[in-house]
Amino acid sequence: MNKINLSMLCDFYELTMAGGYLKNGFHQKTAYFDVFFRSVPDKGGFAIAAGLAQVIDYIQQLRFDPENIAYLRGKKLFSEEFLEYLTTFRFTGDIYAVPEGTPIFPNEPILTVIAPVIEAQMIETAILLSLNHQSLIATKANRIVRAAQGRAVLEFGSRRAQGADGAIIGARAAYIGGCAGTSCSLTDELFGVPASGTMAHSWVQMFDSEYEAFRTYCELYPHTSTLLVDTYNTLKSGVPNAIKAFKEVLLPQAVTSCAVRLDSGDISYLSKEVRKMLDEAGLPDCKIVASNSLDEYLIRDLIIQGAQVDVFGVGERLITAKSDPVFGGVYKLAAVADAQGHIVPKIKMSENVSKITNPHFKKLYRLFDNDSGKALADEVCVYDETIDETQPHTIFDPNATWKTKTLTNFTAKVLQVPIFKNGMLVYTPPPIDHIKAYCAEQVGLLWDEVKRFENPHTYYVDLSPKLWDIKQQLLKNNRL
Amino acid sequence: MNKINLSMLCDFYELTMAGGYLKNGFHQKTAYFDVFFRSVPDKGGFAIAAGLAQVIDYIQQLRFDPENIAYLRGKKLFSEEFLEYLTTFRFTGDIYAVPEGTPIFPNEPILTVIAPVIEAQMIETAILLSLNHQSLIATKANRIVRAAQGRAVLEFGSRRAQGADGAIIGARAAYIGGCAGTSCSLTDELFGVPASGTMAHSWVQMFDSEYEAFRTYCELYPHTSTLLVDTYNTLKSGVPNAIKAFKEVLLPQAVTSCAVRLDSGDISYLSKEVRKMLDEAGLPDCKIVASNSLDEYLIRDLIIQGAQVDVFGVGERLITAKSDPVFGGVYKLAAVADAQGHIVPKIKMSENVSKITNPHFKKLYRLFDNDSGKALADEVCVYDETIDETQPHTIFDPNATWKTKTLTNFTAKVLQVPIFKNGMLVYTPPPIDHIKAYCAEQVGLLWDEVKRFENPHTYYVDLSPKLWDIKQQLLKNNRL
Repeated sequence: MNKINLSMLCDFYELTMAGGYLKNGFHQKTAYFDVFFRSVPDKGGFAIAAGLAQVIDYIQQLRFDPENIAYLRGKKLFSEEFLEYLTTFRFTGDIYAVPEGTPIFPNEPILTVIAPVIEAQMIETAILLSLNHQSLIATKANRIVRAAQGRAVLEFGSRRAQGADGAIIGARAAYIGGCAGTSCSLTDELFGVPASGTMAHSWVQMFDSEYEAFRTYCELYPHTSTLLVDTYNTLKSGVPNAIKAFKEVLLPQAVTSCAVRLDSGDISYLSKEVRKMLDEAGLPDCKIVASNSLDEYLIRDLIIQGAQVDVFGVGERLITAKSDPVFGGVYKLAAVADAQGHIVPKIKMSENVSKITNPHFKKLYRLFDNDSGKALADEVCVYDETIDETQPHTIFDPNATWKTKTLTNFTAKVLQVPIFKNGMLVYTPPPIDHIKAYCAEQVGLLWDEVKRFENPHTYYVDLSPKLWDIKQQLLKNNRL
Repeated sequence: MNKINLSMLCDFYELTMAGGYLKNGFHQKTAYFDVFFRSVPDKGGFAIAAGLAQVIDYIQQLRFDPENIAYLRGKKLFSEEFLEYLTTFRFTGDIYAVPEGTPIFPNEPILTVIAPVIEAQMIETAILLSLNHQSLIATKANRIVRAAQGRAVLEFGSRRAQGADGAIIGARAAYIGGCAGTSCSLTDELFGVPASGTMAHSWVQMFDSEYEAFRTYCELYPHTSTLLVDTYNTLKSGVPNAIKAFKEVLLPQAVTSCAVRLDSGDISYLSKEVRKMLDEAGLPDCKIVASNSLDEYLIRDLIIQGAQVDVFGVGERLITAKSDPVFGGVYKLAAVADAQGHIVPKIKMSENVSKITNPHFKKLYRLFDNDSGKALADEVCVYDETIDETQPHTIFDPNATWKTKTLTNFTAKVLQVPIFKNGMLVYTPPPIDHIKAYCAEQVGLLWDEVKRFENPHTYYVDLSPKLWDIKQQLLKNNRL
């Protein structure tokens, strides 16, 4: 990801619009764009923000090289003035965003760009792509990890990912969401997400016997021996051979940490049988890893059935978020600056009420209860508003304004932090282990009702009275 | 894709197994691996092979640089002998594959690797990832294009793709499958897939009036003016303003090719109303583009309803293959060479019958009827078999051997072609437009019954009598 120039990873209309903005002298007109999403995948109660680190890389590396310019000239659409402009193009604006790992909710600004409109427009596609992809996978991983109730979940999906970044970056997002590690070696090398892995069926098949394959592996990797036991027959052949190899190779070395992996068949039944066999063989520390088209629902179900699984390997259903593989973040104009530099809020109308945007340059607060520590609501305010924590604070549902709630004894935290100021990076992306820990901590501050899979409670994302009034006024002005 | 070293894009177990193969002297033992898949996404009747060009790039660039070695050394798992081996690692084997754009069916070998087992194992993840991803998207694109019945389909999904390659390479695969172009500029620059695009709502919002936004765009790009008409109100504002701009800017220049884009609302109803308005305004050549969470089912339904759409822009449901986002290609050991160089077929058993593999080094034939030109069946043979087209040829269902069919007057075509021999590329990947044309031509040789969306006819993929016998013998030998 660091070596290829992704500047041209933009929808072609960003370029045609940019050419138009330059031609019309709009390129110095400041625009305010918000990234937000409208619904949580899998009908969940919240999502996990991820992908900001790659947005930062993209913005920092953004430049059009001579090959890009030559390609664009060949399209015979763009003026030489515009192509010349692109040769020195750099992002000079401001970006605010919620940190990676933060639980996020529909219709609140996750990332805000304030920049000359031509610049803000050019970075739309790459920002959306990065945030949409990683938030999708981090959100899915978090669901699966919560279903596993403390058992480790490993990301195993590289071969079924949608492209190289789908695997490499997807495994990064899965780790942020709570996975314990990945099978992808490159994600470990690039991002420090611990990679692990054991053997394929082909390893077992390459030897004259299953036992020989197991014994050889244990001799080679005595401290990380996870043996795949379903190549021939799990209970009749695989597990007995694994037990024999463990006893003959590992126990003499006083190694008791080992594992078997179940990759087919009835995981619930097999895991219970295998657990008994391992315990009876004097291998109570031997873990059972299961991996066979798992997801949060199957894992929850396996646990309800009393399956004796210690580690879940989750592949295609995590790395593609198979049950709902799109995160629908959008990038919408919220305001422009007029000639005097005043902020003029903008709204996008739609016959579909849910598609009407929240106008203006905004500030996003999360309100926490001081007694329980739990998150109570988010409030979207105008950028210059401040919530006074010392006073009782009344919030209301923007779609049902008679529903109000008055908060006392709360803490108001601003969620977006400055990332770029005047094109300069002013943010230090945290190490990935910190992001992962922050995610777990913040998810812990949500009520269980928001976290359940079925009909989760809709967390409050309210508008401040000032922002609500501005929105109503714009709706009135735009009425046709 | 060309600049980053993806050699470490492998599952960690490829490395632990490779270390084991080296240690055990298995690294010179030749293994035969097949890539195949077990079911067609979306319950379709066939899939489209794609991704081979990126497999070739990967194999050619495969080498472990000092950073990779340093990373691996840090894992404290691998011997210095193995790390030394990796520093000079190159692929030295043979690869056969079906060309990109070929219709493919479950349980037939799409790609075959013959190489020292250590090499064959190391390339597993990258091969599967590339073929799985692009075959998934090419297959989905082909479905959508067929649903559009000759109307153009444009790939618009970059912002919702699963990572950068999901967008860039996904758009390549969509073009192979039949899309007319993409919104992704980088795919155009890298692969020659024509990129196009028009405007976002933000363009319209940046101007004081919708009309001014449209007029400015037409003046800038008179030959590619597609105006987005739903920012305020499609019928009351967008279309009247578009008509005014077209008449005032384009008609005086004698330009009649233009378009409007519908991105929300009831596409069926709106497109019919818009068509009437355009025709009445004397703009019969003005096309209507529709784009709003479309897929093959919605497009089919729109056409049934008589929607007046000329071009479909398809985003997230294509670029993620949303309805079934995993292509389940697997990589399985089919044979090994013994000390004398004889091929020893291998089988992977499973309690799940559909997971039992077809053993041996194989040859894949497609049999075409000489009268109709249509594909009749595929036959999987042992590598040294030849089908004699001059004799009546009887095929049978491998799962119901009493079902037979005798073919006369047919042509037998070997589907896999040599790609690498002794590590050297012996194949010239065709230009992308040839792949796309080949795909359309080959899909045209399938019966309609195989191509329908609901309950498609299961195309015959049969085993030769010789291969069937070998498989039965191995099943018997492996019985536990």
